[in-house]
Amino acid sequence: MTDAELDAKLAELGLALPQAAAPVASYVPVVEAGGMAFVSGQLPFIDGQLVTGRLGEDVSEEAGYAAARACGLMLVAQLKAAGLIGRIARVVKLGAFVNCTGDFTMQPKVANGASDLMVALFGEAGKHARSAVGVPALPLGAAVEVDAIVALVS
Amino acid sequence: MTDAELDAKLAELGLALPQAAAPVASYVPVVEAGGMAFVSGQLPFIDGQLVTGRLGEDVSEEAGYAAARACGLMLVAQLKAAGLIGRIARVVKLGAFVNCTGDFTMQPKVANGASDLMVALFGEAGKHARSAVGVPALPLGAAVEVDAIVALVS
Amino acid sequence: MTDAELDAKLAELGLALPQAAAPVASYVPVVEAGGMAFVSGQLPFIDGQLVTGRLGEDVSEEAGYAAARACGLMLVAQLKAAGLIGRIARVVKLGAFVNCTGDFTMQPKVANGASDLMVALFGEAGKHARSAVGVPALPLGAAVEVDAIVALVS
Repeated sequence: MTDAELDAKLAELGLALPQAAAPVASYVPVVEAGGMAFVSGQLPFIDGQLVTGRLGEDVSEEAGYAAARACGLMLVAQLKAAGLIGRIARVVKLGAFVNCTGDFTMQPKVANGASDLMVALFGEAGKHARSAVGVPALPLGAAVEVDAIVALVS
Repeated sequence: MTDAELDAKLAELGLALPQAAAPVASYVPVVEAGGMAFVSGQLPFIDGQLVTGRLGEDVSEEAGYAAARACGLMLVAQLKAAGLIGRIARVVKLGAFVNCTGDFTMQPKVANGASDLMVALFGEAGKHARSAVGVPALPLGAAVEVDAIVALVS
Repeated sequence: MTDAELDAKLAELGLALPQAAAPVASYVPVVEAGGMAFVSGQLPFIDGQLVTGRLGEDVSEEAGYAAARACGLMLVAQLKAAGLIGRIARVVKLGAFVNCTGDFTMQPKVANGASDLMVALFGEAGKHARSAVGVPALPLGAAVEVDAIVALVS
C-alpha cells in the first residue's frame, strides 16, 4: 500500500490521520529491528485533543472505542512518518491498555476500536494478535494507550 | 514434539487442553511473523468456565496459580490449533497480567502457574523471559490473562 | 561496547550495576531468539534494597525516576550476566509499569529514568520504542517494573 492509497482508504472510511505526535519523553516513536517495526504506545487524540478519562466512570464504551481507534490512527501516523506504510507485511500484535475502574470488563470492546481499524485499512494483513487489559492510570490521564509490532517487507 | 507427544505429556501431568477459545473480539489468536508466533492474551477456563475474580479479594493465591496455568493451557491450545506444536523451538516470553487489589504483591507466584506449565511441557525449550504485573480489571472479569511469544523452527 | 567500556561509561555517569537479580520465580532473566534478547521484567534495587511504594502516594516523581533507572541498570546487569553487552545492536523496546494511584499521570517522566539511562549508555543504539502505563500493584510491592527487547549483532 502506498501513502496515497492509505490516504484514499482513510478518506473512504471517513477518517484521517492525526499529526504524528512527538514522544512525551525520551524515546522514539518507531524502532525497526529484525524485520519488525516496534511502535511506542500511542495516546488518543481526536481533533488535536487528548481523550482523557476512565472507562466505567466518565468515558462510555462508545467513546472508549473511538479513543482506541484514535490510538490506532496515531500508530498508523507514526508508521507513515517513519516511511514504513509501503513495507507493512502484517500487523503482528497490538497491546491495548484501557484506563478503567475495577468493575469494568469490556476492555475487548474498547480495544476493538484499534483492531477494527487495522483490518479496515490493511485487510488480511491487518489481522493481529492482541492483549487487552485494564489499568488504573495512563500518561496525561489518557483513556486508552495502544502499542504495536508490525512485520515489514525487507 | 508432535501433537500426540504433547497430549501424552499433558495426560502424564493430569492435564488436558481446553477447546481453543475464539477471540472475544476482532483479532486472531496467533500470528506467525519473523520466525516467531505471537499468541494473543488468553483467559483462564477451567472445565469450560471462565475463572473470574481478583487476587487479594476473592481469589486465593492457589486459585490464581491454577488460573494462570489454565491461561498457559489455552496458549498451548491456540498453538496446537494453529498447527505449531511441532515447530516450537523456544517459549520466548510470557506476559502475565494478574487482576488484583492494590496490596497484593504475589504476582510472581500466581504467574508461575503458566511458567511452571511451560517448563513441565517443553523442558529447556519452555524456559522463558517474563513480566508479571497487577491490573485492576481484565476482560470479562477474568482473574488472570497471559500472552506469549514463541520462537519457531523454520 | 565491551564489558570494560560499559563499566567505564557507568562510572563516568556515577552509576554502577547491581548484582544481576535471580528471577523471583520459575523463569529466566534473558532469552535470545530471532536475533533479539528478551529481558524479563526487572524490579528496582538501590543499594541492594528493593524500592517499594506507589507513585502519587508515598513515592515522589524523583524517587520514581530513580527507581526506573534502577530497573534499567538491572536490565543492563542481566544482559551483562548473559554475556550480551558486546552484541547489543539496538535497544528496541522498553515496557514500563508504574505502581501508582488512579490520579497519577506522569508515568512518562518516571519511565524516563530507564529511557535516559539507555541513551546515556548506548547513544543512538539506546534510542528505543516504549510503552509506559500505570498499574495498581507490582511484585513484592515494587514501585516500578521495566522489561526490554534488545536487538543483537549476530
